[in-house]
Parts: sequence; C-alpha cells; structure tokens
Amino acid sequence: MRAQEQLQSFQPLIEREEGRGQVILVCEHASNVVPEAFGTLGLSRAQLEAHIAWDPGALGLARGLSRRLDATLINAPVSRLVYDCNRAPDMPGAMPTRSEIHDIPGNALISDEERLARTKAIYLPFQNGLHNLLAERIALGRRPVVVTIHSFTPVYFGKPRDVEFGVIHDADPAYAQAIVRAARQATQLVTELNAPYSAADDVTHTLRIAATPYGLQNAMLEIRNDLIATAEAQEAMAELIAPVLNMGLVEIQRQAKAG
Amino acid sequence: MRAQEQLQSFQPLIEREEGRGQVILVCEHASNVVPEAFGTLGLSRAQLEAHIAWDPGALGLARGLSRRLDATLINAPVSRLVYDCNRAPDMPGAMPTRSEIHDIPGNALISDEERLARTKAIYLPFQNGLHNLLAERIALGRRPVVVTIHSFTPVYFGKPRDVEFGVIHDADPAYAQAIVRAARQATQLVTELNAPYSAADDVTHTLRIAATPYGLQNAMLEIRNDLIATAEAQEAMAELIAPVLNMGLVEIQRQAKAG
Repeated sequence: MRAQEQLQSFQPLIEREEGRGQVILVCEHASNVVPEAFGTLGLSRAQLEAHIAWDPGALGLARGLSRRLDATLINAPVSRLVYDCNRAPDMPGAMPTRSEIHDIPGNALISDEERLARTKAIYLPFQNGLHNLLAERIALGRRPVVVTIHSFTPVYFGKPRDVEFGVIHDADPAYAQAIVRAARQATQLVTELNAPYSAADDVTHTLRIAATPYGLQNAMLEIRNDLIATAEAQEAMAELIAPVLNMGLVEIQRQAKAG
Repeated sequence: MRAQEQLQSFQPLIEREEGRGQVILVCEHASNVVPEAFGTLGLSRAQLEAHIAWDPGALGLARGLSRRLDATLINAPVSRLVYDCNRAPDMPGAMPTRSEIHDIPGNALISDEERLARTKAIYLPFQNGLHNLLAERIALGRRPVVVTIHSFTPVYFGKPRDVEFGVIHDADPAYAQAIVRAARQATQLVTELNAPYSAADDVTHTLRIAATPYGLQNAMLEIRNDLIATAEAQEAMAELIAPVLNMGLVEIQRQAKAG
C-alpha cells in the first residue's frame, strides 16, 4: 500500500440474503483480487492464480450449495494475501509474509498503520457483516448453522495429500462428525475429520468468533481443489455434498431432541 | 415500538478513544434512556430510575476508572429494558418481559419484526463497535484486557446481599482471580469470585463474544449499587479499585512470563 493512501472499505458480498435454509455459507477465500493500492504484492500472475492467493473452486462450490440448500452465502471480495479473513489481526497468516514455498514481497514490511488499515478495510467489514447475518436470524428465533467452504492444494510442500474431503470443527464437534458419517455413507469421497489440518492449527477463527459464542452448530469444509477445478466439477461436487450437509442436519436435530 | 416505525440506530458512546491503557472498559447498562418510540414501556418513573432499567452508578464508576487507567470506555446509550447489550438476541433477558419483581408491559408482546429491529438498532452497533475497538488494538500488536463494569441491587427478591464487590469470569479465570486476590489484599470490600452470579447464569455474553474468541484476558466487575450511589462515592470507588485492576494486570503478566 502506498504511503498516506486511504484504503477504501471492502464490504463482504452477500448472496441469497433471503435464503430460508438453516445453513449460512461462508467463503473467506473466495477471491484472488488484489486491490490496485497493493500492486501485485510482488508476485507473478501465476502465483496470484494459485492456492496461496485464494481457495480455487471454493466460491463456485459454495454457490452450488447455496442454490441447493437455499442458504445465504457471504464471501470476502479480496485475496487472502491482502487480508485472510479467517485469521485474527495478530495471527501471522492474516497478512502473510510467506505462504507455503512462496515469499510475499508486498507483505514483507508492513507498518502498524498498514496492518490497522487492512484490518479496518477488509477484516472488520467481513466479520461484522457475518455477525449481522447471524444475530439477525437469531433475533428471529432461528438457529443458523455456520458452514465455511474452503479448498486445499493436492500437493503441499511437495507432499501429495490423499484426503479429498476434510471436515473441521471448533469447540463443538457434533455437526462435523455428523457430516463425516454422512459423507462416508453417501459418497465415495476420502473423508476425514480434522484433516488436512484442525482447529489446533488456528484455522477455525471464523467459527470461533462467529458461531461458538452463540452456541451455533458449525463446520469447516475442505475440498481438495483438483476435484473442483472447473465449473462443472464444482456443480457436481455441490450435488454430491448438499445432501450430505442435510443428512448431518437431520442427525444433529435428532441428537438435540434425544439429549 | 409503534407499528411500521423505523427505529434509528443507537451507536455506542466511546470515551477516551485514544487511551493508552491496556484495559478496555465496557458499560452495557450505563443508561436508563428509553427512546421515544417505546414510550415508557408501561413503567413508572420510579421503575425507570431503578436497577431494572440500568446499573445505577456504573457509568460514573467506569468514567472514574477510565481517567485513572487511561482506558477507553465504551457504553450503551439505551436502557437494558429496551435491549440488554450483555445478552444475545435469543436470551430471555435481551428484551425482558419481567425483571426481578417487575413486569415490563412494553415487552409483553414483541413481534419477530420488533425483536429484529431492536437487535439491529441497539445490540449490533454496540457489539460491533466493541469488536472494532478490540480488533484495531490487536492489529497494532496490543493485547487489550476487557473489563465490563456493572452494579447490582443490595436487595434482590427481598433478600439482602452481603457481597460488595463481585468479580466474574468467562472461560479464562486468570484475571478475575487476580483481581479478587488484589481486592482482598488492598481493600476492605467484601469481595467474591463469581458472585452474586456467574457465567453459568448467562451474564458473560459480552466477554464470551468479544474477549474469549481472541484469547483476551477479561473480567466482569459487579459493585453493590448502594456503595456508588453518588458522584462522590463513584469517584471514591474508582480510586479504590483502579489500583486493584493494575495489581491484577501485573499478576497475570507475571503468570504469562512464568508460564
């Protein structure tokens, strides 16, 4: 960011705002847009199209799920390399100087003022926007279920990953566990709980800040991005996973009644 | 609220915004103002001046602490009877139909639309305003400590309360415990941990939503309101408690270094 430059505010994008489904879909890494004020962050075009800049395929998958579940979808309009909305402002990953094997030159020397400016321009509008969505539904007597949609790279630090569908939870594991059971029953996806990483790796910030304090059921979905590389593949994956999310909802509702 | 009426937004009041102290003071029950749209909620003037409408003395005490600790203070500008900012929108206490021995006629039949309108007009600006304050400091590398300031009635359901100073914690008890130790050492106040009620009574919503997800140290202070009934008494209490809060900060910093 150039010195003295005022950073505009980047409001989250909300789709299907009047959705009647119980699930609220969240896509923090939907976009690889780097606003003009940041130039290219010193990266090549190839780097800015790779998984370090966003979660390829996640937005398309989220939109497919949104249609099928009549679920409101909120997504961040800016690359995670400028501000990763799934990280608190003091986490190293919020404005990373390095991602996997790539240095991010534009983030190498961030002043306190710039860190503050990015937090105010990107992180706070996103998380407050999500908070508004959730609290408004709670006020109406609904209990939204928060599902964040992510994709992960098939090869990380040179090592292939076998898992295809990871389901991660924050404090309350119930919905994530129910989704894993449903996916194993209804799909052929290699499905794992808390893979390829977990809350212990500080990847559940959105769930922790938005869902857990209200006691809302929640899960973070991670799809291997080679499985959702095209619009057609994203649609097919949404068609596969939407019923799995619904089966999970039925199960946690049954548990709630029994418990 | 009269039908079809648009409710204005009530922004929280922020004092000493540039304060350099580590503590952020929060006063959810600072005001007994009932906006005109709500009439008197069916209550008498005496009821609207009593503890059911606000925490008498809490704002004066908070201001005295703010000056002594150079602490930013955020307070709600509307009576807890219209919306209690220390309650989630689905908690019965958010827009109570009854408080202690008093029915609140103006809250007896609240439509979903009005519940939503109050949430958007009062609760969300307050909690998002607090979130902004905290996240901005975190972005600057500071670790704010959240202290909410409350007062309680000396007689509740006809029963006198002996405790004078209650210190309540959410998930992390460290700061509350340190404050209790310091108060017992440095003052004559009858001081108790988690009295006259505790997080189990759902009274720590602000701490739970604003402090706990960021791992911020926090405490909820409860002063018996007969001890802070006048401006002079509020000043005297601030003079007594400010050093106690500082002693507590020193202790948790020592624990953090040792741990």
